[in-house]
Amino acid sequence: MSGFATGEAMAQAADERVLVAGLFARLWPIMRSITGDGVRQTHDILGEYVALTRHEIPSGSKALDWTVPPEWWVREAYIVAPGGRRFCDIAENTLHLVNYSPGFRGEMSRDELDKQLHSLPDMPDAIPYVTSYYERNWGFCLAHRQRQALPEGTYKVVIDAGHKEGSLTFSEAVLEGETEQEVFITTYTCHPSMANNELSGPLVAALLYRKLAAMKRRRLTYRFAFCPETIGAVCYLNLRGEHLKHNMLAGYVLTCIGDPAPFTMKRSRRGNTAADRAAKLVLCATKGPAPNILEFFPFGSDERQYCSPGFNLPFCVLARSLYATYPQYHTSADDGTFTSPEAMCESADTVFSILMALEENRVWISLAPYGEPQLGPRGLMQGFGAARVRSETIKAIKWLLNLADGENDLLAMVERSGMSLDSLAEAARRCHAAGLIEERK
Amino acid sequence: MSGFATGEAMAQAADERVLVAGLFARLWPIMRSITGDGVRQTHDILGEYVALTRHEIPSGSKALDWTVPPEWWVREAYIVAPGGRRFCDIAENTLHLVNYSPGFRGEMSRDELDKQLHSLPDMPDAIPYVTSYYERNWGFCLAHRQRQALPEGTYKVVIDAGHKEGSLTFSEAVLEGETEQEVFITTYTCHPSMANNELSGPLVAALLYRKLAAMKRRRLTYRFAFCPETIGAVCYLNLRGEHLKHNMLAGYVLTCIGDPAPFTMKRSRRGNTAADRAAKLVLCATKGPAPNILEFFPFGSDERQYCSPGFNLPFCVLARSLYATYPQYHTSADDGTFTSPEAMCESADTVFSILMALEENRVWISLAPYGEPQLGPRGLMQGFGAARVRSETIKAIKWLLNLADGENDLLAMVERSGMSLDSLAEAARRCHAAGLIEERK
Amino acid sequence: MSGFATGEAMAQAADERVLVAGLFARLWPIMRSITGDGVRQTHDILGEYVALTRHEIPSGSKALDWTVPPEWWVREAYIVAPGGRRFCDIAENTLHLVNYSPGFRGEMSRDELDKQLHSLPDMPDAIPYVTSYYERNWGFCLAHRQRQALPEGTYKVVIDAGHKEGSLTFSEAVLEGETEQEVFITTYTCHPSMANNELSGPLVAALLYRKLAAMKRRRLTYRFAFCPETIGAVCYLNLRGEHLKHNMLAGYVLTCIGDPAPFTMKRSRRGNTAADRAAKLVLCATKGPAPNILEFFPFGSDERQYCSPGFNLPFCVLARSLYATYPQYHTSADDGTFTSPEAMCESADTVFSILMALEENRVWISLAPYGEPQLGPRGLMQGFGAARVRSETIKAIKWLLNLADGENDLLAMVERSGMSLDSLAEAARRCHAAGLIEERK
Repeated sequence: MSGFATGEAMAQAADERVLVAGLFARLWPIMRSITGDGVRQTHDILGEYVALTRHEIPSGSKALDWTVPPEWWVREAYIVAPGGRRFCDIAENTLHLVNYSPGFRGEMSRDELDKQLHSLPDMPDAIPYVTSYYERNWGFCLAHRQRQALPEGTYKVVIDAGHKEGSLTFSEAVLEGETEQEVFITTYTCHPSMANNELSGPLVAALLYRKLAAMKRRRLTYRFAFCPETIGAVCYLNLRGEHLKHNMLAGYVLTCIGDPAPFTMKRSRRGNTAADRAAKLVLCATKGPAPNILEFFPFGSDERQYCSPGFNLPFCVLARSLYATYPQYHTSADDGTFTSPEAMCESADTVFSILMALEENRVWISLAPYGEPQLGPRGLMQGFGAARVRSETIKAIKWLLNLADGENDLLAMVERSGMSLDSLAEAARRCHAAGLIEERK
Repeated sequence: MSGFATGEAMAQAADERVLVAGLFARLWPIMRSITGDGVRQTHDILGEYVALTRHEIPSGSKALDWTVPPEWWVREAYIVAPGGRRFCDIAENTLHLVNYSPGFRGEMSRDELDKQLHSLPDMPDAIPYVTSYYERNWGFCLAHRQRQALPEGTYKVVIDAGHKEGSLTFSEAVLEGETEQEVFITTYTCHPSMANNELSGPLVAALLYRKLAAMKRRRLTYRFAFCPETIGAVCYLNLRGEHLKHNMLAGYVLTCIGDPAPFTMKRSRRGNTAADRAAKLVLCATKGPAPNILEFFPFGSDERQYCSPGFNLPFCVLARSLYATYPQYHTSADDGTFTSPEAMCESADTVFSILMALEENRVWISLAPYGEPQLGPRGLMQGFGAARVRSETIKAIKWLLNLADGENDLLAMVERSGMSLDSLAEAARRCHAAGLIEERK
Repeated sequence: MSGFATGEAMAQAADERVLVAGLFARLWPIMRSITGDGVRQTHDILGEYVALTRHEIPSGSKALDWTVPPEWWVREAYIVAPGGRRFCDIAENTLHLVNYSPGFRGEMSRDELDKQLHSLPDMPDAIPYVTSYYERNWGFCLAHRQRQALPEGTYKVVIDAGHKEGSLTFSEAVLEGETEQEVFITTYTCHPSMANNELSGPLVAALLYRKLAAMKRRRLTYRFAFCPETIGAVCYLNLRGEHLKHNMLAGYVLTCIGDPAPFTMKRSRRGNTAADRAAKLVLCATKGPAPNILEFFPFGSDERQYCSPGFNLPFCVLARSLYATYPQYHTSADDGTFTSPEAMCESADTVFSILMALEENRVWISLAPYGEPQLGPRGLMQGFGAARVRSETIKAIKWLLNLADGENDLLAMVERSGMSLDSLAEAARRCHAAGLIEERK
């Protein structure tokens, strides 16, 4: 850590790292899927830190173009090799079973079994993450090296799992602010034991919630949602889509946000919303390597739903190493070794800065727009008018008053003036206190 | 020829080259001008391949700001040198006589004759192409080397030509499609014996007509016009201007399109119409050297009329070596040696691809715009949702559905997504068949 | 001087240089401030060359957000050193006294005196220019080297000055043209003995006035204002703001425009008004080093008032070395040694060219917009239509007629065509004479 931090800030940072590490250890072993008890167990734990409201959507319910699938349950799953050795046991690694696999029990030859196996020839030691939500295929995932070493003989397969009428689980939390304008943070809780994708999103979201809840004053309302990917976002939009269309100022999907790589921002479909502008501003102003700023594309994560043409919400993705761009993605190699509690805390701090930029991002209107108002009598100016060096504060006040025509929000002023958000926000506070500006409602 | 072609395609290509070579040989020797029998004879021959409707506009008719000039006739024109040798004979080369020259008979000294001669000192072996439509000057054109070698003595001049009340000739053909939206192809038939400028335009247009006529299904209507340059386009607009303003989706002047140089596209006055966007997309996607893409300028060919401010039609120029940019331009050196039937066939294929891009360029509207529609049950998706590699087809379907908000035509989707027109058009066909999109009317 | 000039032009140029040098010598020694007799004396002298109307705004008057300050008077001001030597005498240099200083008489130690002194450690031989308009601080300015050499002892301070009920002085002049559209030139007369900032602005403005007054025909109305900076512009806007909002086509602050550096243009707040476009065009087309073209920023000179959000007038700054960018700025080193009458005359010529571009900048509408109009019968075209080289004039005519759709002013035509303003203006004159275009009213 460079620079100086107060003892209190250092203690808080250490506290956050401990919290993240502890949550990670508890959530890691749970067998999650798009439905089922693994999800509920995960939300129970997150609920200790976030005031979550649980929603259960019954199987078979219609949600937009989709139907909520049955609830999945699984007790155990493994294969017994010819010599009697058990392998591909989900008690060892939840990725061994194809996620959402139907139940199965039977014996078969190595060649028959092999048709049901998934492995990665180019990553021979990693177990791939495979799902089969909408076709009922049972299967197992294992390291390619292990698969190739399987001897001839008879294998016994046990999958004590199945689907039943039940429900799909998601949770939300709202921190009300002074206005009804909302910032929406969402992430997903359907991935089994992987770290960056996707324990990092829920952990960073939980940290963010705590930071916001601790604030004395929040202008904006903050909404958090923890859903299974895709079908969960569809169900969430089915419930809250109209509300979000009216109230949402900015939204972010947090995903793959736990490793120390530079930040990635994927723009919203609209491309230049307040969500985009605040995130770009903060990410570009943050010390360290330049962020990756990607144009929108309609594949990836839940932005596919939130940015579908009918909703077209101001929704960006915030990540470090974006999904599908790092080798460990969707494999057992995403095991926490290249992510860290430190990186997740740093991610939470950065997203928090983006939210604070949105807090400051008001549209100010000058109450003295004809000519410059006199700054001196209002205590906003030094005495010697012709001094050759003007302070940054006075520059910021002059920019603010000049652009306060009701057309520019504070982010637009930052973009046009080249001044920092902090200096313009400070100028706004001073001018507001001096009665020179008012907020556009 | 690289790659493999079917026997049928190769036979068709050979057939087209033979057709072009034959038409070229028949049209080459004809003495064309803006009016007269040379034009009619040319249209008779083109009419064997294109279902032309002939229009004759009487001399003296008003057309926009112009008056149709008298009809020109010429039987023979030559000069007899002091020793009795005949030269500058239009039977040898139609360029020898100043085009539209009045009749003249007389004897004169070499110095007097010289005032009526045109040659090019910097291209001493080429005969220049000179016209005198709106002032009645007789004259001859010849190689500068020949002009300099003319001996002193008395010359006899014979121009058996003149102007009479008659008419101006142009022809058009329409291939009706399913909609009234029109693509308009025009070129000109007033140039005497030159190859690139301008037998190439009529020959490529005739090939295009044949290709379109052979199609089983055409969404768009195609209009072809063969006119004398400038005054012909003025007369055509006088007749069809209002119709074109209402129906024309895209138009192209074909000119100087018979040599193997890279393609040139000159943008419309409006700059970014469907005509511009389709042409740019296809020319940039075509293998081979990069095209020249020029901004509009108000001199050149018939785009001057179609893009005049009162009409301002979506009209581009398509060429290979653009007019006035190659040394043989408007001289007897434009004699077919640097153009070829192969190049003209290639030009026709490329323009045809542009027209096919316009055929595909519909505005699709998603019928399931809220969230992503389920692709799997509609047969548009593979089974294993988390497979790490998605096919180009699924990417194209996702782009199409995401952008199908009624604001984007297919070309806009290509521009935004970076995907190929073919893949998006295929995605549209599949989504349309699945009932997921409909066309905006 | 390169190239050839007519005897008359050379005589005029010499005449202007003499005029500028003479005015400079008379205006230099006057003790100016934002109010007082120094300003009036300055306006008396300028009034010999410009038909000025004087305005006196009583002290205490309200003007926009401001109150007109009392009138300042000063008879003498100096310090007597312990040995009896008088220094910091305003009779030697008007900068010695803090501008607008209250009166004071007294004796004090060197240390006490030092608290009232201003000097520049990094420019030890220059006297700084310091003002104290809105706080009543007396003080003296001197060379840092001199300040450091002051001996211990008792100093006697004499400032025979004070503030009284009086008025603030500004002057204006209007040269009426054929239309009520106005071009507004303003500069300021509150700076004491400095050359670039700011005798250059009033001198160049006076030259410009003479050039315009000598013109036989002026389409536009020209307004000149000579005001104290800031409070003067505020008072001027208080009087004329509504008028300017309705009538002003373009405005320029002239300041720091007397040195031979390349031109600087600071854009208006709106960024691309006729004022910006004409200035940019002329400055970029002028021979010599490229101009500096700066985006608007809300500090600097009177553009702060004219471009305040309530007025938001089309107002640029024209300068050579812009304020606060050259070392001599606001010091006694701005003494005329790096400025020159030649540079001021050149500045006046260049600004005049900008004004002439505005004179030409009409919106022309074609009266024959359907197809090209025939140029030949109207004497606008050569006889041989197919000649391979077209003159610039015909090109300009074709651009003009093509763009004369009522949407493009002449500057827009220059920008789109790449042709010179002169050639398009000449084309407009010829087409107007031929009845082909009319001006949009």
